[in-house]
Amino acid sequence: MIRANENFNKLQASYLFSDIAKRVQIFQDTHPEMEVIRLGIGDVTRGLSPAIVDGFRQGVEEMAQDATFRGYGPEQGYPFLREAIAANDFQSRGADIAADEIFVSDGAKCDSGNFQELFAKDIKIAIPDPVYPVYLDTNVMAGRTGNYENGRYQGIVYMDCLKENGFMPKLPKTPVDLIYLCFPNNPTGATATKDVLSAWVDYARENNALILFDAAYEAFIRDDRLPRSIYEIKGAKEVAVEFRSFSKTAGFTGTRCGFTVVPRACNVYAADGSKISLHGLWNRRHTTKFNGVSYPVQKAAEAVYSEAGKVQVKEYIDGYLANAKVIRQTMTDLGFDYVGGENSPYIWIHGGGRDSWDFFDLLLNKAGVVCTPGGGFGRCGNAYIRISAFNSLENVTKAMERVKDALK
Amino acid sequence: MIRANENFNKLQASYLFSDIAKRVQIFQDTHPEMEVIRLGIGDVTRGLSPAIVDGFRQGVEEMAQDATFRGYGPEQGYPFLREAIAANDFQSRGADIAADEIFVSDGAKCDSGNFQELFAKDIKIAIPDPVYPVYLDTNVMAGRTGNYENGRYQGIVYMDCLKENGFMPKLPKTPVDLIYLCFPNNPTGATATKDVLSAWVDYARENNALILFDAAYEAFIRDDRLPRSIYEIKGAKEVAVEFRSFSKTAGFTGTRCGFTVVPRACNVYAADGSKISLHGLWNRRHTTKFNGVSYPVQKAAEAVYSEAGKVQVKEYIDGYLANAKVIRQTMTDLGFDYVGGENSPYIWIHGGGRDSWDFFDLLLNKAGVVCTPGGGFGRCGNAYIRISAFNSLENVTKAMERVKDALK
Repeated sequence: MIRANENFNKLQASYLFSDIAKRVQIFQDTHPEMEVIRLGIGDVTRGLSPAIVDGFRQGVEEMAQDATFRGYGPEQGYPFLREAIAANDFQSRGADIAADEIFVSDGAKCDSGNFQELFAKDIKIAIPDPVYPVYLDTNVMAGRTGNYENGRYQGIVYMDCLKENGFMPKLPKTPVDLIYLCFPNNPTGATATKDVLSAWVDYARENNALILFDAAYEAFIRDDRLPRSIYEIKGAKEVAVEFRSFSKTAGFTGTRCGFTVVPRACNVYAADGSKISLHGLWNRRHTTKFNGVSYPVQKAAEAVYSEAGKVQVKEYIDGYLANAKVIRQTMTDLGFDYVGGENSPYIWIHGGGRDSWDFFDLLLNKAGVVCTPGGGFGRCGNAYIRISAFNSLENVTKAMERVKDALK
Repeated sequence: MIRANENFNKLQASYLFSDIAKRVQIFQDTHPEMEVIRLGIGDVTRGLSPAIVDGFRQGVEEMAQDATFRGYGPEQGYPFLREAIAANDFQSRGADIAADEIFVSDGAKCDSGNFQELFAKDIKIAIPDPVYPVYLDTNVMAGRTGNYENGRYQGIVYMDCLKENGFMPKLPKTPVDLIYLCFPNNPTGATATKDVLSAWVDYARENNALILFDAAYEAFIRDDRLPRSIYEIKGAKEVAVEFRSFSKTAGFTGTRCGFTVVPRACNVYAADGSKISLHGLWNRRHTTKFNGVSYPVQKAAEAVYSEAGKVQVKEYIDGYLANAKVIRQTMTDLGFDYVGGENSPYIWIHGGGRDSWDFFDLLLNKAGVVCTPGGGFGRCGNAYIRISAFNSLENVTKAMERVKDALK
């Protein structure tokens, strides 16, 4: 009898986006004259930048001719892309990361979901609340949690991120082995200083723990004092893996490319305490279960690092940051407490006592604006909503005018 | 202490292709005048067909403009592609598969490697020998085997595929829960009749087992009596999953697109014997750990099913089949025993008593031709080599002339 992995039964049905869609549909049916403006899902809306499109086109044309056609490439990515990433994203910022420590993939969601395969079943895991649900759900599927009770999976160490602690997870009181961190944060938009990250790196070194650092939104950082990579922190190479994505940096949500950095200096441990190379483990996983990213997509990603590409990508992000500024100003004017939106595309807004779904309904029904209720990201999000800057400036401005009119 | 998944230690280091590369390098260094012809790895060599390139280009151009830009798509693939697949690959052949039973992915390697996540740890697994190593290695990583002894992982039911049984795996004598099958076979090139597949479907139905059917090479089938999908077999929808790929069908090894069929009628079981929808499990896995295939790649794949695309893809495959015919004729002329190459790109050749590495060395050193030693696919491949038809007709003809001269 073919038996199922019954850990899947523990997963909570994810109704968040379908519930949102249903409520939007009802509103639209009853207000056919109203154009709904969507600031919910974290998906980019603007076309790929010209330099990136040129790289993409060039890749496609090469595939059209026998002489320039490319079949299977290296599973880890083509050297031209790995080298461009290492030089531009790390070495230029003083982070000593080599090209062969970069694993190109089809996105940070896949990598951050798959990475847990490398670890033993009974490790202790610390996860922030609120959180991007993929970290949690993939560990549930792998059997690393107990059942779901009172809004939380048993066995996980949750790190509350609330206004009281500046939305920064605190170092756990009991030792943990694996720590998920994300800065600039999804969903809160909070950013971490070098001091904050240094404390985590020290903790990991002292406890032989590992940090999985999700830096998918690093391109939104404009404050030079803030680290864009965890490898800007001394000692991080031995205890941290970093996930990166072109999705938000360069508008690749529908094009699909990201990468993971696994430094050669990073080790994990056998049960007998001997060291095992994490780079070797991920390389084996990556080459066994993955077959590389589409060649034209890698050409498009390479163009992100061309001279023209760098300028265009900065303008691209600037556009979304301008939207974020409009949202922040509106929330300030309305007297809401919020975080994020300065070095991040997300603004995390406290509902002033409202439940997150009530706040969602208010914005939808009074202003025709769709956000994401914070409860979808964990128990600590129940009093918040997330507003995303991913839309046109025109739509964001119109949405914020409507919100102002509705709530002032 | 962050402990590793020590099941990775059981994996045998895969030196196959690096060993091949080393031997080729030595030969090339000592014979600089000789142009080595590679018929080893199963990678296509010809440019994408014009209709496919047009679809690809169109997708890229849409990504360049705000008005037509696509961000995140459905993780399962766009309806335009799922519908084209269901209509052309299944419904047109009498297999009642619906669009929502198709899960588009970045390739059959990923899907056939990831699918085992849906099952309990202690199921009994049957795997052919010789075999595509991914089926085996991914189950080793997940802890479903014992150690490697005498060329085999303990706990796996190996099904020997040898000349004596026409390279067809036999129904296991002890009940198994999960069965990996691949037809047209990699590496042997053998094809299965409807009777053979019917026996497996009956077995699975009687034993509440599940078949994972890899049909990555179905486009090479030219004999109309042979099934191209397991769903052409009555009753298969309840007990089989099928993996498909555009890699060999349409030259997508470097473009990356494939799909998996999980019929809604297919169930697996909880420990208490109750039924669980396999479609639901895979959908949850796919949406949690995967974020869809690049939109322009899906447009390219859609074009495979256009009127022009169908004609071009048939010509594309015909080209490789013409190569296979040259290889077969050469092996016939030389008096070798072989299988495959009629409805498959692979020819599996018995070395007439030679070990597979000796046979490999002979072809390399006497003819400058690279093949794959059969031992790399399992113990039952030790007396064989695999020659692949993936190259130009000119190169294949030249290679076979050299082999004839060297061995006649």
